[in-house]
Amino acid sequence: MDKDLTAQANAFDPVLSPPGVPDAVVVDADGIPRIRLRADHAASVSLIIERKTYECRQENSVWTAPLPACHGFTYVQVLIDGDEVLSPYLPIAFGCSRPYNYIALPEEDGDFYRLKDVPHGSVRREYFHSSVTGDWASCLVYVPAEYEAHPERRYPVLYLQHGHGENETGWVYSGKANLILDNLIAEGKAVPFLVVMNAGMVQTRTASGQRAVDHLLLPRMIVEDVIPFIDGKYRTLTDREHRAMAGLSMGSMQTSITGFTHPELFSYLGLFSGFLRDFIAGNPAMDPIDRAPSDNAHLKALDDPAAFAEHYKVFFRGIGEDDHLIAAFLEDDDILKTAGVACIRKMYQGGHDWNVWRRCLRDFAPLIFC
Amino acid sequence: MDKDLTAQANAFDPVLSPPGVPDAVVVDADGIPRIRLRADHAASVSLIIERKTYECRQENSVWTAPLPACHGFTYVQVLIDGDEVLSPYLPIAFGCSRPYNYIALPEEDGDFYRLKDVPHGSVRREYFHSSVTGDWASCLVYVPAEYEAHPERRYPVLYLQHGHGENETGWVYSGKANLILDNLIAEGKAVPFLVVMNAGMVQTRTASGQRAVDHLLLPRMIVEDVIPFIDGKYRTLTDREHRAMAGLSMGSMQTSITGFTHPELFSYLGLFSGFLRDFIAGNPAMDPIDRAPSDNAHLKALDDPAAFAEHYKVFFRGIGEDDHLIAAFLEDDDILKTAGVACIRKMYQGGHDWNVWRRCLRDFAPLIFC
Repeated sequence: MDKDLTAQANAFDPVLSPPGVPDAVVVDADGIPRIRLRADHAASVSLIIERKTYECRQENSVWTAPLPACHGFTYVQVLIDGDEVLSPYLPIAFGCSRPYNYIALPEEDGDFYRLKDVPHGSVRREYFHSSVTGDWASCLVYVPAEYEAHPERRYPVLYLQHGHGENETGWVYSGKANLILDNLIAEGKAVPFLVVMNAGMVQTRTASGQRAVDHLLLPRMIVEDVIPFIDGKYRTLTDREHRAMAGLSMGSMQTSITGFTHPELFSYLGLFSGFLRDFIAGNPAMDPIDRAPSDNAHLKALDDPAAFAEHYKVFFRGIGEDDHLIAAFLEDDDILKTAGVACIRKMYQGGHDWNVWRRCLRDFAPLIFC
Repeated sequence: MDKDLTAQANAFDPVLSPPGVPDAVVVDADGIPRIRLRADHAASVSLIIERKTYECRQENSVWTAPLPACHGFTYVQVLIDGDEVLSPYLPIAFGCSRPYNYIALPEEDGDFYRLKDVPHGSVRREYFHSSVTGDWASCLVYVPAEYEAHPERRYPVLYLQHGHGENETGWVYSGKANLILDNLIAEGKAVPFLVVMNAGMVQTRTASGQRAVDHLLLPRMIVEDVIPFIDGKYRTLTDREHRAMAGLSMGSMQTSITGFTHPELFSYLGLFSGFLRDFIAGNPAMDPIDRAPSDNAHLKALDDPAAFAEHYKVFFRGIGEDDHLIAAFLEDDDILKTAGVACIRKMYQGGHDWNVWRRCLRDFAPLIFC
């Protein structure tokens, strides 16, 4: 384990990870990794990691807490004198509808998302006008390394969505999707394809005038705005056989909605921490303020399992064993069994987190477009 | 002035600006913009803006301070009980070698960097291996909107550098370089060209083993690694007539070093808050810890003013009237006068900040490649 853990883990997320500040995650002589933060005037510094609170011990303005048995990408909340703040000494991702500190510890099997000495694709920020929102929007596009070298070739496209409270940057900054694809393509495990990542928290106004995420708007934006924009700007293969969609958590619901209602557009679907149903609809306790309900009308695609199997060459579902939403996933198992619809189903060690979602992408990508 | 100031100013910097959190910059009924931050347990909250400290007043866990007469992009330091933190309620840029809160207030003449209803280019993150550092590096590339629509065309390139403590994202996130170029190109004021932005804090090890920025390494990386990579991957015009370099502050020194020593590569140079000399060299008081000195050997390019005028079709220098480093700029005036070297020289209202640098780019871009 290297001393420069934070710097290493966040190479090339330089907005979010400060090179040149003291390393906040260090491994001591006893082999235990600790977070160390400086605060000269605080009476207390505490950390919240995976819903548990850890009080830091102070020595000469440096506050230290040993890390629990976490690994990979783990969110950390920092509290100074009881008030939550962002630390400039830990890297920052965008989650829970705000910038969020995290730590990135090495994983034994983490080689698949590391920046390695292989050809690297680019990640492009594109701007397009959305007819659905009536405003400009922006998305990220992963373009495989070989794209410019083969101006005669056209490529398949995966539309890949983040979860609730995240945005279009999540799959690159937190998920390392571009590095996962670079590595899979270099090893010949996946064919080269584009990945298009959009901000999925598309909002409407409720009757009372509040802004609310409407899960039906992103599917419309993908179909009416994004696909025409991408197919117009990039050398894509535009038939349904060369278009896939996947998403995590909220993005998996949006994938179900988009994919099930548009068999003419998609041949491959991936649900990561993944749900058939917009199961939040009708359950205001789960998300009382910022959701407009969807009606789950897309589930009628399950009524004809033969047509479903014909439409979707790969229907992938994955989840972490400790995901707090696993009950909904298991209910989906029953729904699919009753309907007679088959899927590729994967269980992972871990919870509702990026460590699982990275592995979902690693396992889904080799199955599509081949 | 709109209530959603922060959200507006940071549209499409979504990692850095939280949609969905309460607006931290609001305009009250009295017309005065104020910063409002929540802290439930703090005994004091204060802000540092342009080197002055403002104590916030508390009311029901909300801490408020009226904004001083600042405008545009302004860094803000937040202190809770005397300890500096990042607020998740203000947008975040990368400056001073760390993530940094800022506010973005409207400017009367700020239309030139706003996202408007014009064709938009893309911003691409590229990865390349550097022979200078022996490691992988990453840069951002602005590609004008028309690039994909004209596969037969080749384009000029501007190499554009940030300042000390910043990184390759600065010109996009803080500088709005892509939007400035989109607008200039749409108005026919600039020809379409690529902009390549690299991380300029390229480091070496000093004799004592410390890491130190060496201003001579970025120039080598540009010449030996970046230009071949960009000319290999993009449809560029590769002669000296179609290559420019510009930079701000430290990046202006690096532009002088790179440009003056490579007249065979560059025809246009821009120094923003801009310096001929690595004037920090030999002055350890200015930057005692993280600089390896350069030798200013590049200044011999000034010995032959006729050759200089022949080589550099545009030699642009700009600075803010209140820049704390203006003495060095005025000394450079004398050096150029003595040498008999002409330049385009612009003075702006403002200091050593992004508001001036955005205007430098706005004024420099129309002068090159035409």
